[in-house]
Amino acid sequence: MPKLILVRHGQSQWNLENRFTGWWDVDLTDKGVAEAAAAGHLLRDKGVLPTYAFTSLQTRAIKTLHLALEAAGRLWIPEVKDWRLNERHYGGLTGLDKAETAARHGDDQVKIWRRSFDIPPPVLEAGSAFDLASDPRYAGIAIPDTESLKLTIERVLPYWESAILPKLVEGETVIIAAHGNSLRALVKHLSGISDADIAELEIPTGQPIIYAFEGGAPTGERYYLKDA
Amino acid sequence: MPKLILVRHGQSQWNLENRFTGWWDVDLTDKGVAEAAAAGHLLRDKGVLPTYAFTSLQTRAIKTLHLALEAAGRLWIPEVKDWRLNERHYGGLTGLDKAETAARHGDDQVKIWRRSFDIPPPVLEAGSAFDLASDPRYAGIAIPDTESLKLTIERVLPYWESAILPKLVEGETVIIAAHGNSLRALVKHLSGISDADIAELEIPTGQPIIYAFEGGAPTGERYYLKDA
Repeated sequence: MPKLILVRHGQSQWNLENRFTGWWDVDLTDKGVAEAAAAGHLLRDKGVLPTYAFTSLQTRAIKTLHLALEAAGRLWIPEVKDWRLNERHYGGLTGLDKAETAARHGDDQVKIWRRSFDIPPPVLEAGSAFDLASDPRYAGIAIPDTESLKLTIERVLPYWESAILPKLVEGETVIIAAHGNSLRALVKHLSGISDADIAELEIPTGQPIIYAFEGGAPTGERYYLKDA
Repeated sequence: MPKLILVRHGQSQWNLENRFTGWWDVDLTDKGVAEAAAAGHLLRDKGVLPTYAFTSLQTRAIKTLHLALEAAGRLWIPEVKDWRLNERHYGGLTGLDKAETAARHGDDQVKIWRRSFDIPPPVLEAGSAFDLASDPRYAGIAIPDTESLKLTIERVLPYWESAILPKLVEGETVIIAAHGNSLRALVKHLSGISDADIAELEIPTGQPIIYAFEGGAPTGERYYLKDA
């Protein structure tokens, strides 16, 4: 039976520094590297071996994928990278320290920006230090200037339907190495979580989440591979 | 103008141990890892930035690609892995120490196996320690039991024509991270080297080789990027 494996990237430098990251391309820390390899060893030890891989265009997810696949002995499987699996774009909050932002705007406002379903953070101004307009990886893409979770879902799900789900239908065991919010988008869809309840869902780093699939639909609820 | 970048994988454990490797999946040494990263730094420093990547199904080539792309800031480009870029299959010599093999069979015989254009080594016997029949990466592929350079060319060139060359025609700058003999097959074709002269061609590890392309053909002779 094909499986879907979701892995959030290991700790990044800005996870460590408690800064809003979004589309900014931040590398893994040493701890993040170790988390990614541990995820791969768990796949190997549990015999849940991916045959097809998807990831975002962001270094921290791509490296997590590569480190996990290497640890699982699966570095040779096909892999596809797509911007629609990128992290939610954090708009004008990109690069800001989370604690400083809370001190300036108040905890309630920051909680809305972080966890509301459909209220995006302020936009990232063109020409700011974190403007990605000149990044060649996004050439030809309408780069968002901010995203709510709702907007993130609106680009993740069409990609899920058109590119990823067909692989599961073909019988592939698919691994997706991605980000807190692009994975929340998928889990919301696959587990039928409401707009209100999704705010409480946290995806831990480097911890493989599994759905068993049959005929293009999950056969049951997700579980952590470590608990299987 | 699009470019083709050829990179032979960095030193592998069996390069270091002087053993015949072929299709056996041997990892990079620390020196090989450093060579791969250095290749990527050279790409970055010379401004020769790949936009599309090809590699084999073998760990040492895939890791060389990933390390080089990361060092060049290009980990996000599309990558395609295919067995037709694998190293030449060394048949029954796989795993043997090169010096011991020469002592047993004579230098002349070993030179024929290593460098003759169309005489393959003895076949790898089914069920031997190096039989890859149960390796899932080769499921559905008629795994060779030995290959001459001529046989290697016969699977590399059709892949070049059907999968890689079209990307150069589309204007992509293509990087191929592969192996001594799969790259010799390509250089023989692109530089018009005779069956007799190809015996003398050595491809150094981790040293990017460049062809400029226009309209599907090289515009001139290859060169080492370090000399550009």
